Amino acid sequence: MTSNDQAALIAVDWGTSRLRAMLLSAGGAVLAEAGSDDGIGKVAAGTHEAAFERLVAEWPAVPAIMAGMIGSRQGWREAPYVACPATPAAIAAGILRFETAKGRPVAIVPGVMVRSPDRDGDVIRGEETQMVGLLERPGGYRGLAILPGTHSKWATIGEGAIADFQTFLTGELFHLLAHQSFLRHSVTGEDGDLATSPDFALGVRRMVVEGLPFLAAVFSVRARYLLDDVDLHANRAYLSGIVIGGEIAAARSAGRLQDGTAIGIVGARSLARAYHRAFEVAGFATGTLDGGEMVLAGLVSLARGIGFLPGESR
Amino acid sequence: MTSNDQAALIAVDWGTSRLRAMLLSAGGAVLAEAGSDDGIGKVAAGTHEAAFERLVAEWPAVPAIMAGMIGSRQGWREAPYVACPATPAAIAAGILRFETAKGRPVAIVPGVMVRSPDRDGDVIRGEETQMVGLLERPGGYRGLAILPGTHSKWATIGEGAIADFQTFLTGELFHLLAHQSFLRHSVTGEDGDLATSPDFALGVRRMVVEGLPFLAAVFSVRARYLLDDVDLHANRAYLSGIVIGGEIAAARSAGRLQDGTAIGIVGARSLARAYHRAFEVAGFATGTLDGGEMVLAGLVSLARGIGFLPGESR
Repeated sequence: MTSNDQAALIAVDWGTSRLRAMLLSAGGAVLAEAGSDDGIGKVAAGTHEAAFERLVAEWPAVPAIMAGMIGSRQGWREAPYVACPATPAAIAAGILRFETAKGRPVAIVPGVMVRSPDRDGDVIRGEETQMVGLLERPGGYRGLAILPGTHSKWATIGEGAIADFQTFLTGELFHLLAHQSFLRHSVTGEDGDLATSPDFALGVRRMVVEGLPFLAAVFSVRARYLLDDVDLHANRAYLSGIVIGGEIAAARSAGRLQDGTAIGIVGARSLARAYHRAFEVAGFATGTLDGGEMVLAGLVSLARGIGFLPGESR
Repeated sequence: MTSNDQAALIAVDWGTSRLRAMLLSAGGAVLAEAGSDDGIGKVAAGTHEAAFERLVAEWPAVPAIMAGMIGSRQGWREAPYVACPATPAAIAAGILRFETAKGRPVAIVPGVMVRSPDRDGDVIRGEETQMVGLLERPGGYRGLAILPGTHSKWATIGEGAIADFQTFLTGELFHLLAHQSFLRHSVTGEDGDLATSPDFALGVRRMVVEGLPFLAAVFSVRARYLLDDVDLHANRAYLSGIVIGGEIAAARSAGRLQDGTAIGIVGARSLARAYHRAFEVAGFATGTLDGGEMVLAGLVSLARGIGFLPGESR
């Protein structure tokens, strides 16, 4: 590991449940990492500075740049949303800057919003930094970037900007249905490797090929259990297929999925695999992009844009 | 009130959260009513008989006929599902009969199922008795019967039978989204009179006119709160419109809603009003049918069918 003498910046990903920090050199290399469960869902108003300083107490007093829910109304300070189409320069221009009590410069990355007379408004906060990382890759990026999760985000990336995006409630609905609804008696509580189950593919097909409406499809999970004695693990895989397939069908009907569009899935391995398989059933090829790498690249690029690191963002 | 000397039957509606009993004369008139919160969700296996006898301890030892979740695997005894198309006679033939320890004859009405190679299986348990009540009305019934609630049921009634039906998870999803999901911060916790709000109609329109996909539409509830500072009560009305409108759009896309079909809504007053308004926005006229009356009529008809009451079912 390189010495902390070279430290130039702390890059922070501060979400609802986790606080993660990386100590970086001027060239953007990671010198050290730290994390805690002081997510903004847990940290009381007025105590964000203390929570952050506690985590990085051993590190040099370099500037910090932060992305995620830390910039929301419930965070440290609110960084208002930047409108789409949003270039990395526009996002950098929207960064909120201030100093801590000890004089450490802090920068909070804004979220990005869609406001259009043609459709409902939409917001992201945190994922915009991954998309900046994507845009700043050598050769850039053009196509769909899908960030699956609690609130799955489909972004159209092109012309050096986040052109547009849409949020689907996939992960949260799956969790509510599998654990809080009456369907919890019809599926196992364990995830295991759902995407390799033939029942996962069946659930996806029901949605993307047969076009089952979501509100009706979910009840079939119960009927399969009652009438066909389907195994609880297979039925959880089926529910997962219904929900992820439902997202793909919904995005297609919203005009987001055209033949020939590049589809990049940005996310944790097991979820990326499930989406890859679901798209395969739907007849689309996908690539996978590492979410952690994209956050780091985005934070480094934005830090350069505001002079927190030497060099210009590409 | 007529004297209990005329008592001939106890008609019981025994669901997940409530146990309701009516003491009837041979002619089907209600002599007395009783209820408790000994729903099957609360009553332990092996104690159903005791719970029932406790409720009707003061009444004569006449036979009892029961409909609802009491006939499920988690109930007193399981009455297997009868397949669609299901006539009242077929449902009566599927009734499970036994005697209690004290020799009281008990009849449990079976649920009804759809099993078809063309679509997913589906089940109802309890609502079939309301539909028997509907079928046995003077002049019968032909058209759609919609029983809104936790699990909303759309039944096609005709040729003297429940021809087919489909379940939508509307009420349960609304409750999960409004109270358990991250949307709970974007809507009030109180129902009030949602259906008269212009935001209810807006939510319905989004789904049935603009055709928004459900998984995307629900996120707009959050965006309206964050970007447009929409009032929490108006936003709950909007969410209700999204979910009920989503049900209507889903049923239409499943081919259940054709021009000229009679649409009868069977249910509690406030919910029936909300559905009436939603159908109005969607361009359909509806009638309202009293759910309690239908249960009683259905139980009386089925009791006649098995000789628990004199006279033949129509």
